[in-house]
Amino acid sequence: MLRGRVFSGARPTGKQHLGNYLGAIQNYVALQADYQCIYCVVDLHALTTLADTGQLRENTKEMVLDWLAAGIDPEKSIVFVQSHVPQVAELHVLLSMVTPMGWLTRLPTFKEKVRQQPDNVNYGLLGYPVLQTADIALYKADTVPVGEDQLPHLEFAREIVRRFNYYFEPVLVERQAKLTQVPRVMGIDGVNKMSKSLNNHIEISASPEEIKRLVMKMVTDPQRRYRTDPGRPEVCNVYSLHKIYTADRLEEIGQRCRAAQIGCVEDKHIFAKRLIDALAPFRERRAAFAARPGYVEEVLEDSARRARAIAQETLGQVKEAMKLV
Amino acid sequence: MLRGRVFSGARPTGKQHLGNYLGAIQNYVALQADYQCIYCVVDLHALTTLADTGQLRENTKEMVLDWLAAGIDPEKSIVFVQSHVPQVAELHVLLSMVTPMGWLTRLPTFKEKVRQQPDNVNYGLLGYPVLQTADIALYKADTVPVGEDQLPHLEFAREIVRRFNYYFEPVLVERQAKLTQVPRVMGIDGVNKMSKSLNNHIEISASPEEIKRLVMKMVTDPQRRYRTDPGRPEVCNVYSLHKIYTADRLEEIGQRCRAAQIGCVEDKHIFAKRLIDALAPFRERRAAFAARPGYVEEVLEDSARRARAIAQETLGQVKEAMKLV
Repeated sequence: MLRGRVFSGARPTGKQHLGNYLGAIQNYVALQADYQCIYCVVDLHALTTLADTGQLRENTKEMVLDWLAAGIDPEKSIVFVQSHVPQVAELHVLLSMVTPMGWLTRLPTFKEKVRQQPDNVNYGLLGYPVLQTADIALYKADTVPVGEDQLPHLEFAREIVRRFNYYFEPVLVERQAKLTQVPRVMGIDGVNKMSKSLNNHIEISASPEEIKRLVMKMVTDPQRRYRTDPGRPEVCNVYSLHKIYTADRLEEIGQRCRAAQIGCVEDKHIFAKRLIDALAPFRERRAAFAARPGYVEEVLEDSARRARAIAQETLGQVKEAMKLV
Repeated sequence: MLRGRVFSGARPTGKQHLGNYLGAIQNYVALQADYQCIYCVVDLHALTTLADTGQLRENTKEMVLDWLAAGIDPEKSIVFVQSHVPQVAELHVLLSMVTPMGWLTRLPTFKEKVRQQPDNVNYGLLGYPVLQTADIALYKADTVPVGEDQLPHLEFAREIVRRFNYYFEPVLVERQAKLTQVPRVMGIDGVNKMSKSLNNHIEISASPEEIKRLVMKMVTDPQRRYRTDPGRPEVCNVYSLHKIYTADRLEEIGQRCRAAQIGCVEDKHIFAKRLIDALAPFRERRAAFAARPGYVEEVLEDSARRARAIAQETLGQVKEAMKLV
């Protein structure tokens, strides 16, 4: 017995890294046990900040391959590309008529973007939260898993839905945020959040050799300069990942590090082995999916068909409420 | 041999008046001889300034009935409702990614609207010209008949198209404005442009009695207070319409007015008769169309199908150029 419907969108960023996996994908997979899940590659949202779209297709395919290999089941869940459902653009235009401009220009995320790309403040960028609202409203999801930083956008979506319902008829439902504890996974530099743009990431589809190479480069306790120095696990990035991948030996490793009985190199070997082993079944499944020509395309096509069916129903209600012909 | 394709859109304002007819509809009808014509009821555009959508359907139907009765031939031309073609919303969203916000906020028409409806400055209102650009680009019209006031919007559309072609691939074509001499038809108040909102209009579908009643109310030369005062045809609103409907007696009427040989009442009787006669075939055709249940709906449906076919082709090229999946 499912508890409701989940919607979540992610920009097509290509091969996913450990941060994506621990922060989002794992949760996507787990939610399938209790919810009908709709996972969307938001390529339209990506366009608001994208100068070059050359990588869009490749990035979509690689990301979806990662999702499927990680355990998102396209028989159960809907995994589709935003632009494959025209209804989202239609609802976006309709909702834009009840969205005060001031609400958009005052959003902190918009101000931040204007600082980041002052030369590319386009109309689509301003409308980002309207498009997000259209997505959430269209699929009638009860539940939207979001990190804390996305709460203002969800609150915005609720306000727009409320406004629409007030002006016309209450055909849209205000969604609940399902606050997701997003573990902050640090990059191999040990300083910044793991991120593709900072090139401090480990792809979950990386080969064992590549994983090893990157793990060996990981910054540990910066004060531990010699093998004989005692380490401080609490500031060590490798140790923080041991908590996930080496949980059974956590105490032992911590003590030996503090006592300088184990060096960072040996420690990294332990972690690399664990990570490689943990990701092995994933790598296998991914290789199998990748070997099936047209498989990802098929999944996306089939999902888009199911998504459009839901979307068309909602859009019909919206148009009826607005008394459009 | 057709000379190209025309696109034009009009807001669903219900029964059309003499100003609409002389300013736009007549031209719409005439263009059919030389162009493939696409005439669009822009209900989405109407939403940018509409508080109440209760009249939308009725207004659309009445306007289209007038168009058809006036001679727009749905076998030749495409007569459809904007929101029946989802592709326009899709192209709108895509073009919004290459539309600098500053271009929109600086448009005089936007500033004017902000003054007119300071409490309803919505995101859709700001995007009005983007939606217009999407319409023009979508149907690959060579020619857009516009009044002078619309020239900045058409120039804007060309700039957006140029920008899109520059960023991606040159799949969209910059359209030519076909400047239309829009005769400025004054309302029966003789002071303001004929307009439904000022209630100074004569509907082209009005009954002979109604036409007569309204013509008799028309303001003529305000300085001619008595029957014996000489009139000044050059400032008389009735006379300006004589130019269209009583062209064969124009000189005679002008001279007799100046010589106070004809009074305003008699003059109005002449004009009313001419207008009633001129509109008689229109009224007949309109009544015949109105008597066919579902006729307008059929025309709109069939046209929307043809419009979507053209739109889908353009949208496909646009998505391909943007490398959307």
